[in-house]
Amino acid sequence: MEKVSVDFEPIGRRISLQRGANLLAAAQEAGVRLVSICGGIGSCGECVVRLEKGQLSPPTIVEADLLTQSRLAAGYRLACQAQALSDVKLDIPPESLTAPQRLQIEGQTNEAELQPAVLAVEVELERPDIGDPRADSMRILDALRNRGYQNVQLPLAVMQDFSNRMRAQGWVARIAMRGAEVAGVLPIGSPILGLAVDIGTTKMAAYLVDLSTGKTLSKRGEMNPQTGYGEDVISRIEYANRNPEGRAILQSKVVQAINWMAEELCREVGESPGQIVDSVVVGNTVMHHLFCGLPVQQLGVSPYVPAVSESLEIAAHQIGLEFAPAANAYLPPNIAGYVGADHVAMLLATEIWETDKVVVAIDIGTNTEITLAAGGRMLSCSCASGPAFEGAHIRDGMRAAPGAIERIQIRDSQDIFLQTIDNQPPVGLCGSGILDAVAELLNGQIIDSSGRFIHGHPLVRLNENEGGIVLVQAPETGHGRDISVTHKDVNEIQLAKAAIRAGLEILLLEAGLTHEDIDEIVVAGALGSYLSVGSAKRIGLFPPIPDDLYRQVGNAAGMGAKQMLLSTHRREVAEEMSRRIEYVELTAHGEFTKAFMQAMYL
Amino acid sequence: MEKVSVDFEPIGRRISLQRGANLLAAAQEAGVRLVSICGGIGSCGECVVRLEKGQLSPPTIVEADLLTQSRLAAGYRLACQAQALSDVKLDIPPESLTAPQRLQIEGQTNEAELQPAVLAVEVELERPDIGDPRADSMRILDALRNRGYQNVQLPLAVMQDFSNRMRAQGWVARIAMRGAEVAGVLPIGSPILGLAVDIGTTKMAAYLVDLSTGKTLSKRGEMNPQTGYGEDVISRIEYANRNPEGRAILQSKVVQAINWMAEELCREVGESPGQIVDSVVVGNTVMHHLFCGLPVQQLGVSPYVPAVSESLEIAAHQIGLEFAPAANAYLPPNIAGYVGADHVAMLLATEIWETDKVVVAIDIGTNTEITLAAGGRMLSCSCASGPAFEGAHIRDGMRAAPGAIERIQIRDSQDIFLQTIDNQPPVGLCGSGILDAVAELLNGQIIDSSGRFIHGHPLVRLNENEGGIVLVQAPETGHGRDISVTHKDVNEIQLAKAAIRAGLEILLLEAGLTHEDIDEIVVAGALGSYLSVGSAKRIGLFPPIPDDLYRQVGNAAGMGAKQMLLSTHRREVAEEMSRRIEYVELTAHGEFTKAFMQAMYL
Repeated sequence: MEKVSVDFEPIGRRISLQRGANLLAAAQEAGVRLVSICGGIGSCGECVVRLEKGQLSPPTIVEADLLTQSRLAAGYRLACQAQALSDVKLDIPPESLTAPQRLQIEGQTNEAELQPAVLAVEVELERPDIGDPRADSMRILDALRNRGYQNVQLPLAVMQDFSNRMRAQGWVARIAMRGAEVAGVLPIGSPILGLAVDIGTTKMAAYLVDLSTGKTLSKRGEMNPQTGYGEDVISRIEYANRNPEGRAILQSKVVQAINWMAEELCREVGESPGQIVDSVVVGNTVMHHLFCGLPVQQLGVSPYVPAVSESLEIAAHQIGLEFAPAANAYLPPNIAGYVGADHVAMLLATEIWETDKVVVAIDIGTNTEITLAAGGRMLSCSCASGPAFEGAHIRDGMRAAPGAIERIQIRDSQDIFLQTIDNQPPVGLCGSGILDAVAELLNGQIIDSSGRFIHGHPLVRLNENEGGIVLVQAPETGHGRDISVTHKDVNEIQLAKAAIRAGLEILLLEAGLTHEDIDEIVVAGALGSYLSVGSAKRIGLFPPIPDDLYRQVGNAAGMGAKQMLLSTHRREVAEEMSRRIEYVELTAHGEFTKAFMQAMYL
Repeated sequence: MEKVSVDFEPIGRRISLQRGANLLAAAQEAGVRLVSICGGIGSCGECVVRLEKGQLSPPTIVEADLLTQSRLAAGYRLACQAQALSDVKLDIPPESLTAPQRLQIEGQTNEAELQPAVLAVEVELERPDIGDPRADSMRILDALRNRGYQNVQLPLAVMQDFSNRMRAQGWVARIAMRGAEVAGVLPIGSPILGLAVDIGTTKMAAYLVDLSTGKTLSKRGEMNPQTGYGEDVISRIEYANRNPEGRAILQSKVVQAINWMAEELCREVGESPGQIVDSVVVGNTVMHHLFCGLPVQQLGVSPYVPAVSESLEIAAHQIGLEFAPAANAYLPPNIAGYVGADHVAMLLATEIWETDKVVVAIDIGTNTEITLAAGGRMLSCSCASGPAFEGAHIRDGMRAAPGAIERIQIRDSQDIFLQTIDNQPPVGLCGSGILDAVAELLNGQIIDSSGRFIHGHPLVRLNENEGGIVLVQAPETGHGRDISVTHKDVNEIQLAKAAIRAGLEILLLEAGLTHEDIDEIVVAGALGSYLSVGSAKRIGLFPPIPDDLYRQVGNAAGMGAKQMLLSTHRREVAEEMSRRIEYVELTAHGEFTKAFMQAMYL
């Protein structure tokens, strides 16, 4: 039978199979993990793909029911319903992918102008002999002078490596120049590399970039090894306070992880970390401080003062990074104790700072940063949303790991459908799952708008007199215990979403606007990219504006870091932007408590 | 009976005793170790002191015999012959002291202008509160701006320590400013300290200085711990080449020793190394490179190229120095592979660079550096004098340690008188001892001008058919074996002195001068300060010009380092001077072999 090929973009997977093959089956065979709560029976409507090129079977009745007319017209289909009739190219929206694969996706691939801090220049040096016993440093300075470089600075770290290297590689070299300063010495013909790093509290992402072309050569995500010393920033601050060597340990863990990622990324493309001549590192203020070896004690107590807020450019080797001897690490400014350099990077990447529109940028986490750009002003705040959205303080909560329930539908107020990460037997609920759960409980009228379980509803069981439901019965779970949602869980989500929504309302109030004025809401970060906007709106986490005004941008902080790596101009923009941002301290705002109480309702 | 006091300067010891007390006895009681080869019987003429104030008994016939009329007129006396008739103040010339005490003496106490690189400014910072959550970095920048400091640089290393310190010491601080850069943060009222270090191949010296007054608070000499890895620079280079971690080990040893000295020096005056905000380090090119972690392999092979010759200003913590967080270490330039930053420091301290006269500066060691200043030119060379003057390659040679014979007289061609360091039983010959020995052998016509022992002389014994004498018989030595001087020993000294003298002759030749044109010879360094100029002239190491044209200046390199610590202007002078120096490579000079052969004669 005739073969056709199916391209899955932007993941970049391709598979060849028989004409007429089902797209969901094709995706499974290609290793593309589409969300499919109903198991492919056409009832959950989650396995959405968009046809970019080629011919599919006509839409089914199920699709006509679950997708809007306008979406169908735009090429959206349900993978479980469609067959490939020719070679096809499909675009997979991030929300159709299960969590582990979505980690790899960059929503926003905004290319920055290419204006790196470090450039390469190839030189040939004069060889020493008895009639010319000049120091090696003089040889390199003279060679660079011949290439037009005056008053060159030659850091000790470069010279520690230089003499042996020149004698081994024959007095020709690619010199990495940071302005008039030598950043490293590379073999002739080797690429000049940069590394962009986003240090999340839980996860880290690193991007290896060719600074001469701007091309991303490889990228990688890893767990932040500091998680072993505390799940959230507060427990890491406590660890650093409690142990005399705590700060140094946490620093060395994250630096080791970056070194390891750099090594792996370079190995993948046949290069060496010694060729990394520049880097940009972003993270929240606590991650930033721990990476730099800065004190964090004062970040743990009011008024939550950072040690350093201005941008930093530090010698990479000073903090243990094993890059080129005089490579630097650039860190954009922190705005406040809980609005860090990662938020700056995210704002940079999403370009909300240069819009005429009213745009909100949200990065949801244990701490949620929100920035409102409107009428030339930028207002930022930090919301103590707590770790509920990361699965903590939730009875059966967990991180977005295999077996975590990430999508839930409750049909007809009784039938519960689940999607777990990696399709593993369910073991708990991750952030997007618990968010869906509360939204579906509300939709099914199983809880009321104050979060109380409605007694008498067939799914509701008494649980310490407060109600609750069992999502999955013990025999069907991965660990043999029930997975439930309790009144307390709902309450935790109410507190979390109220903190975020109240923060947004205060920013709007400060700007003299309401949510109806919002032109766009950019949602970034891990949870922000995976959550269902519909569920978030349903529970009041997000304001009730049309779905198409929401933009889920994935790891925008990482993208911003990459832009700053590729362009010093982008660093200036980030610094200028940070200076313009007005920080609003919510706990000191007179209207905050009222807004918070209002936002508690579902 | 009436009491009088005797002051010994510049050591600064004072003792009170009965009027009429003998000065040599007084010195011994005060712990001032004067050289006294004859044991105080008035025959060796070594225990010279100079009366600065007070009244002594009239000169004896012995003194009239052993001291010239002009020296007597200038107040010079032999301590063994003079009695204190009133309170007296005596100046002890370095050459009158035994080796261990001379180590502590600084011949040249040339005070430099006070213009330190780092100054202190006291500031009070605004305390953070919920209405003012600015970063700590902003508080210090704002406070400094109020004191007139614009565009201040705030190194990460300072901020790593700052937040906790301010919360502990109450938001007031003494900020150490290096121009517009913060070098450290000190408690209110504490002195701002600097450290000058001279790293010798064998010995190190460190000086703790108050940068605001220029006063030396304490000083200390220690062995260079690298001696455990090789006695001379060549064996250290070999160690660094042979072992993968060799360079790092040698660096860490010397840095640890400096940290330890800094700690001890600060402890002595009740301060802490965290208050050291600036430092100057000098050493020969190999010591310089090992201290900086620079490669030394290329210094061990022709054409002996330094990795770095220009001056360096490096972050102290970058190489492991535990000073104030952003303290620097300044290293003056190296002139060549074997004319290092210590020689530059010595030239600076002795000020020969600004004289109109014809001046020679010599620093004798395994490698001997010579600079000739004449007619506005400065010519430098390095002589491979070898380790004979440090006791190596000499049958009974040893370092200047207790028991080393440091002075010798052979009277009437037969009676041998010795002075040992610490008056311990003799165990060997140190540099000044072996130099004296050869001179006295020559004086006593026991060897001839070609260095051959004269057969038939009563002291000469056959030793492998080449001759030799026994200086001390086995029963009288510290180890029960004879101490001898052999033909081979004499030959080693001939080679060593020929290398030095030939170097001097080549410099004179290059300048179109002869030794008769020399106005002054400055002799620095350990051996240079202890040797007998008379002996050195006798064997032809030094040219035959009057004794009073010689100036033995002690640790002039250390003094130069201290000057550069106290004055950035002196650093500029050192750099300018280094640029002016013309390096003469002896091994490439057409006349060198001839000059060397001529200089072999005694």
